[in-house]
Amino acid sequence: MSSRTVIRGGLVITASDEIHADVLIEDGRVAALAASGTPAAEAFTAESVIDATGKYVIPGGVDPHTHMEMPFGGTYAADTFETGTRAAAWGGTTTIVDFAIQTVGQSLREGLDAWHAKAEGNCAIDYGFHMIVSDVNQETLKEMDLLVEEGVTSFKQFMAYPGVFYSDDGQILRAMQRSAENGGLIMMHAENGIAIDVLVEQALARGETDPRYHGEVRKALLEAEATHRAIRLAQVAGAPLYVVHVSAIEAVAELARARDEGLPVFGETCPQYLFLSTDNLAEPDFEGAKYVCSTPLRPKEHQAALWRGLRTNDLQVVSTDHCPFCFVGQKELGRGDFSKIPNGMPGVENRMDLLHQAVVDGHISRRRWIEIACATPARMFGMYPKKGTIAPGADADVVIYDPQAEQVMSAETHHMNVDYSAYEGRRTTGRVETVLSRGEVVINQREYTGHAGHGVYTPRSTCQYLN
Amino acid sequence: MSSRTVIRGGLVITASDEIHADVLIEDGRVAALAASGTPAAEAFTAESVIDATGKYVIPGGVDPHTHMEMPFGGTYAADTFETGTRAAAWGGTTTIVDFAIQTVGQSLREGLDAWHAKAEGNCAIDYGFHMIVSDVNQETLKEMDLLVEEGVTSFKQFMAYPGVFYSDDGQILRAMQRSAENGGLIMMHAENGIAIDVLVEQALARGETDPRYHGEVRKALLEAEATHRAIRLAQVAGAPLYVVHVSAIEAVAELARARDEGLPVFGETCPQYLFLSTDNLAEPDFEGAKYVCSTPLRPKEHQAALWRGLRTNDLQVVSTDHCPFCFVGQKELGRGDFSKIPNGMPGVENRMDLLHQAVVDGHISRRRWIEIACATPARMFGMYPKKGTIAPGADADVVIYDPQAEQVMSAETHHMNVDYSAYEGRRTTGRVETVLSRGEVVINQREYTGHAGHGVYTPRSTCQYLN
Amino acid sequence: MSSRTVIRGGLVITASDEIHADVLIEDGRVAALAASGTPAAEAFTAESVIDATGKYVIPGGVDPHTHMEMPFGGTYAADTFETGTRAAAWGGTTTIVDFAIQTVGQSLREGLDAWHAKAEGNCAIDYGFHMIVSDVNQETLKEMDLLVEEGVTSFKQFMAYPGVFYSDDGQILRAMQRSAENGGLIMMHAENGIAIDVLVEQALARGETDPRYHGEVRKALLEAEATHRAIRLAQVAGAPLYVVHVSAIEAVAELARARDEGLPVFGETCPQYLFLSTDNLAEPDFEGAKYVCSTPLRPKEHQAALWRGLRTNDLQVVSTDHCPFCFVGQKELGRGDFSKIPNGMPGVENRMDLLHQAVVDGHISRRRWIEIACATPARMFGMYPKKGTIAPGADADVVIYDPQAEQVMSAETHHMNVDYSAYEGRRTTGRVETVLSRGEVVINQREYTGHAGHGVYTPRSTCQYLN
Amino acid sequence: MSSRTVIRGGLVITASDEIHADVLIEDGRVAALAASGTPAAEAFTAESVIDATGKYVIPGGVDPHTHMEMPFGGTYAADTFETGTRAAAWGGTTTIVDFAIQTVGQSLREGLDAWHAKAEGNCAIDYGFHMIVSDVNQETLKEMDLLVEEGVTSFKQFMAYPGVFYSDDGQILRAMQRSAENGGLIMMHAENGIAIDVLVEQALARGETDPRYHGEVRKALLEAEATHRAIRLAQVAGAPLYVVHVSAIEAVAELARARDEGLPVFGETCPQYLFLSTDNLAEPDFEGAKYVCSTPLRPKEHQAALWRGLRTNDLQVVSTDHCPFCFVGQKELGRGDFSKIPNGMPGVENRMDLLHQAVVDGHISRRRWIEIACATPARMFGMYPKKGTIAPGADADVVIYDPQAEQVMSAETHHMNVDYSAYEGRRTTGRVETVLSRGEVVINQREYTGHAGHGVYTPRSTCQYLN
Repeated sequence: MSSRTVIRGGLVITASDEIHADVLIEDGRVAALAASGTPAAEAFTAESVIDATGKYVIPGGVDPHTHMEMPFGGTYAADTFETGTRAAAWGGTTTIVDFAIQTVGQSLREGLDAWHAKAEGNCAIDYGFHMIVSDVNQETLKEMDLLVEEGVTSFKQFMAYPGVFYSDDGQILRAMQRSAENGGLIMMHAENGIAIDVLVEQALARGETDPRYHGEVRKALLEAEATHRAIRLAQVAGAPLYVVHVSAIEAVAELARARDEGLPVFGETCPQYLFLSTDNLAEPDFEGAKYVCSTPLRPKEHQAALWRGLRTNDLQVVSTDHCPFCFVGQKELGRGDFSKIPNGMPGVENRMDLLHQAVVDGHISRRRWIEIACATPARMFGMYPKKGTIAPGADADVVIYDPQAEQVMSAETHHMNVDYSAYEGRRTTGRVETVLSRGEVVINQREYTGHAGHGVYTPRSTCQYLN
Repeated sequence: MSSRTVIRGGLVITASDEIHADVLIEDGRVAALAASGTPAAEAFTAESVIDATGKYVIPGGVDPHTHMEMPFGGTYAADTFETGTRAAAWGGTTTIVDFAIQTVGQSLREGLDAWHAKAEGNCAIDYGFHMIVSDVNQETLKEMDLLVEEGVTSFKQFMAYPGVFYSDDGQILRAMQRSAENGGLIMMHAENGIAIDVLVEQALARGETDPRYHGEVRKALLEAEATHRAIRLAQVAGAPLYVVHVSAIEAVAELARARDEGLPVFGETCPQYLFLSTDNLAEPDFEGAKYVCSTPLRPKEHQAALWRGLRTNDLQVVSTDHCPFCFVGQKELGRGDFSKIPNGMPGVENRMDLLHQAVVDGHISRRRWIEIACATPARMFGMYPKKGTIAPGADADVVIYDPQAEQVMSAETHHMNVDYSAYEGRRTTGRVETVLSRGEVVINQREYTGHAGHGVYTPRSTCQYLN
Repeated sequence: MSSRTVIRGGLVITASDEIHADVLIEDGRVAALAASGTPAAEAFTAESVIDATGKYVIPGGVDPHTHMEMPFGGTYAADTFETGTRAAAWGGTTTIVDFAIQTVGQSLREGLDAWHAKAEGNCAIDYGFHMIVSDVNQETLKEMDLLVEEGVTSFKQFMAYPGVFYSDDGQILRAMQRSAENGGLIMMHAENGIAIDVLVEQALARGETDPRYHGEVRKALLEAEATHRAIRLAQVAGAPLYVVHVSAIEAVAELARARDEGLPVFGETCPQYLFLSTDNLAEPDFEGAKYVCSTPLRPKEHQAALWRGLRTNDLQVVSTDHCPFCFVGQKELGRGDFSKIPNGMPGVENRMDLLHQAVVDGHISRRRWIEIACATPARMFGMYPKKGTIAPGADADVVIYDPQAEQVMSAETHHMNVDYSAYEGRRTTGRVETVLSRGEVVINQREYTGHAGHGVYTPRSTCQYLN
Repeated sequence: MSSRTVIRGGLVITASDEIHADVLIEDGRVAALAASGTPAAEAFTAESVIDATGKYVIPGGVDPHTHMEMPFGGTYAADTFETGTRAAAWGGTTTIVDFAIQTVGQSLREGLDAWHAKAEGNCAIDYGFHMIVSDVNQETLKEMDLLVEEGVTSFKQFMAYPGVFYSDDGQILRAMQRSAENGGLIMMHAENGIAIDVLVEQALARGETDPRYHGEVRKALLEAEATHRAIRLAQVAGAPLYVVHVSAIEAVAELARARDEGLPVFGETCPQYLFLSTDNLAEPDFEGAKYVCSTPLRPKEHQAALWRGLRTNDLQVVSTDHCPFCFVGQKELGRGDFSKIPNGMPGVENRMDLLHQAVVDGHISRRRWIEIACATPARMFGMYPKKGTIAPGADADVVIYDPQAEQVMSAETHHMNVDYSAYEGRRTTGRVETVLSRGEVVINQREYTGHAGHGVYTPRSTCQYLN
């Protein structure tokens, strides 16, 4: 027996269309769309009707960059898959792709299994995995093929964090060559970590220990350099490339140059780079630590370049890089030594709202909002049109979004498991009202009605921008 | 009483989605889409059912650059609105935007009225108008406002053809300033005609009279120069810019540079630049005259740059610049003097097929095919989502396209009113099978069932890429 | 009987060397250099000995851009060849190349003869002529060949000043083609005058009549556009290009791009663009009119780009564009209408000092000072090594320069025939002490010892950067 | 008692002048120049007179990149300081700067002392040293300061050759930071050796063992990448950069981009990249091994970019990277494994002639010939005007060059201690006739009259392009 829901009267917004349509959901999928008020729409019958009059009906957000429960520097990211995916749902995101980690010496399989164990049965929304490759060797390369086949089709490497996640250029080249063959997509943390570590050591030796020095030593030029290097290595390998958390004008310029040359190079940025800056890193009383992440926040003038990149499609995706550490007890590990501050910020709940604010502010159009937050992440990581759009046959991951409602972001009201908000006190226009995940209402008129375990693992096909 | 049609079982392709869906049409509009085989789809009832199993169901093509019955050098383009729009329908195009012409001394209104008179009651498919502005003055500028209000929202100027359509940089700047205020979009023929005319005179004086010299004097550098100049004038005016029939590597580079800077600059190319070259212009026995158009065909190596531009979105649209002149009696006017060959080529019937061939050849994806040939032209010129997509509420301009069928292009079989095909003998894979225009079948299983006068004038909103 | 002078003990600075040497002058030429203190130096005997201990011994300045007695807007530049060349000598400049003007309808010969008549017998220092070509036609083109043969090897065209000096792109292309054949060098005033005149008209219509609007309407983008256009026309013609008075960041960028492509493109800037800015144009009480010249002064941030261009050799020459109009009676013609302010500024006396100040300030090296002010202008315009260096066989145009002396620039003390100084009150370090022109002392310890008529006409070979 | 020589009647060519002058030499230095035929010239008296009528009189060449007796892969470069400097003299080069090597674990001092021991008393011409820094650590950094003080003012690092000379980005950054303080100049071998070694391993595994694979694995993109990375690291350090043996179009483009940005970045190329290509590497019967050097020879189309770079000054120096290994017994070590072929080619004797041939061929002017081969190397490495020019006070390192003589390059006639010529059979126009080193004739009318030990160590000041 089928369960049916119809969402009536809203403005359905996808990456390409804005239409007044009723959406019929059957068995967890979008079954049909019909122009509102037409006989075809009136013919839709369902047990459940959601009135979306005056609201937007948008695809659930796809956040392709989260780190739930991630170990870092002796502690763990504060959101579990349970708390983190629940917060995501609150924020209108219905799919995350998290990063399973291979530690050096481990097989990819061991790392992936460990992450499956963390997530399984705990998630409020659907999830997939990328694989962090920390130890490229002959075995790892073979395992990459297997992972692609089973739906883990993207692999992250780090040009930063020597001794931890760092891959040298030879390891990167080998992994890229492999991905050129097996269809995987290399995701790159592009910072010259070898050079940065010299600057860190020198800064600490000069007594520059405050959080703001985190931003000063991780120089924009060293992000741009690594971005350029990754691009050229990918070009040598004949492989595509996806650069994560792009934050610097100069890095955007490298991506633009490569794309002008016709190279299959992609870039992601995050809300923190669009809305925050080194001013936050310089907040007194160690408050700057709340904003420590890598790549770091940049001076304000970088924001315009990122917005421009999002408009010109030199940047294609906005993810969160959600990786929260509590100020008390976690961020504080770095008092007196900024290099010991756990790197990462909360954000999985805030992304859709902040990007809607960008619509209100005129940075991007409504369709582009959905494109960078839903459709492109889904296509980039092989989940389209199951995820990222509202179309017949797609998973019924749907958000009813009130474009007029106002809210104030705050740790007191958010649902992420972390004791601060990076956007504390920020007023935004627009708010998630109701969220469906595969047809099931998980947020209902701003009440959580979901449950851990509703979300299921989503194997992915290869990148859909490469054919 | 409503007329209803359902298209069953095809792969519906839009600029953003590829879904297996049934399409319900009511009263000339797309009423609903439902995932094929679902109860929702089965609930669709209609008087008429089209079986699209194994076929593509795509939006009708939008060709934003045609010149039916255009006067040029004492003769007229050979296709009337009647013959030309019928040929368009045969080729899967369901909307054209043609160019009304203001001649020097005329008001815009006079020019526009004349074109309305030519088209009205004669078209097989829907049509709109751009306005060619040949005489910028205070009156013209005021009229531009009125035209925008009534749905003629784009204005073409020429940096070529001194003494005919040519505008000087001051006239261009003034028109751009006006369009920055009234929302109009300036379309530019970007060639330095003043310099080209010097080269034409010198070539003829040297006895270089064959068609191939048409390509040699209209230098790529002079297209790029004018492109750059138009961009900077638009930047000074604070106006967007749409450059028509981009053909040269160097011009694409200027567009890419401007877009990297974040300027609202757009570029169109045409199939002739993607598939033909100066090799054609050099065909013996004056046959090269068939390929005389401006901007001219370029050496083959320019093609790769155009394809790359289409992939990187430095070029956004493929139109035809359809402007056919018969070889016998028309092109022949230029025997012994290439400068007297009427400029223009037939193509309105070939565009959708040639671009599908580009999909087959791997130049672009299926979605990009629809984007550059349907969705973006519609958005660029203010007709979306009425035109350019298949979505509830859209006009039911729909093509059933057989991706497997093979055909051979030829003047013997084409429907354009011209005595040659620019693609004579070319084999392509894919063919239009059935075409609906506002729900009415105008091509049925490769039989013409439309009629002159079905097509109606389509007023347009302003460019939808500028908000 | 030979006259001999020896200059002892100074630091001889040329574009390539800095050496402690004695300079022997015979019959108006540098006969020999010898390392100071060596027997070879001691062997130099002369009637006259100049002690240059602690001083620089540098080539006399070559100013390749002056407009003595130039007619403009119904008035004349205030310096005659007599007063202007005397002021030049005071400032350490021993050669000027002035611009003879062809007015529309005239032959080049008529224009040139008129300028010869103005200069002959009146100059304190040597002089040559460029030819302003205002009326390109078949006769003009033929005359260009003759002028090249007789030593007028460079031709200036204007993309600004429609109706006066303006050439259209066809005229420019023809002149460039001719110069590609006869070895002449086209010098371009690169501003899109057609577009600028629209902006002028609009500004005046808005009541924006103050001098500062002169700077606002002559937009940097329109200088850059014209620069780019001139470059591409030269590329089509296969000709070199010299762009005069480059003032905008964006124009330098166009030159840099062209030079990276290997094109023989050269750029000149002037002290006013390096040391002054729109702040001066905005001086109250119509004082801004003193700084009205075209290209106009730019906002301060352009200065760094010009200095960088001089260092990277994207700019090769610093001239003055000396064209003084008195504030009283001349500049005042434009009260209430900035477009009527005569365009031009005094500077022939200040250039060497201001550029030495740039050495003091660290913008350029001493050798680069001599290169951009003496050697390159001489080579660019075919006078090397006769002018622009200190080497055996060169004309003995030599300046004894005191690098320690301080001075304050002022209309009260300068020798130009104009009632204001653009650098009033500016302190600089370094001062001309003694000047020789072809071996004759024309400034002796800051006393003028020259005379009108000493300076002779200097025919020039073709550009020495093109072989 | 002074020894005096006068060189009469030649055309003296320096980087900036071409003058007919007699050159008087006293005590090993240029004492004076006088215009030939003047009383001043006639006053020159000397024990020895060299007639240079019809000849060029040029500064002795300065070759800033040689590797005499260099250990590489278990063997040694075949030229000793004795044989190599003698060959240099034969080729018109009167100064070399060779590379002392620090091996890992050694101090800089130990390495430098070893090279002093090799060179002292053995050289036919003057010599200086750069220092190869293979092991950056706190001690090394301190030693760099000392070396700068004693005249070893430039330090080479390698981004290639992991495990041998390779420095990681942190070591590079530290050395650059130090050089930014002490005035040293970092010279960079810019190839991504980490990535190249992966490609080498893969090529050998595929059985690609012939010399031509040396060129294929050391990809142009990996040279360009490393060049870009070195530039950005230098920018972070605030240090200048000199990139050695630039061979690829893409690397020149990186240098041009950096220089356009105003960065103090310099590039050197070598005759082998200007005159040879991968065609040579592909010569059969292992003959390709003769042309194995790193960076490798490139396809022919790269040559035009290098010549253009030399003309636009994006490349400033042509050195030889002279590092000869005999074909028999040395190059043959790599039969069956290209990675074992000693890297390096002979050339110290050929440079001045090949570059004169470039003058004859129209690639560069005569003055530019002297600039890139004499003056700029001398200035770049702190030896100007002692070396690199002919001016009073300079060392009398002078070459009498016959521009008309023809020669055929061959191993049978050359003087380098190596059993092949890279230019075997090449005809060139122009030949060294007589060479003076500090006033002493070491080649006299093509007879060697010098002796080992005449050449002395030349301590150097810091780079003269940085003030």
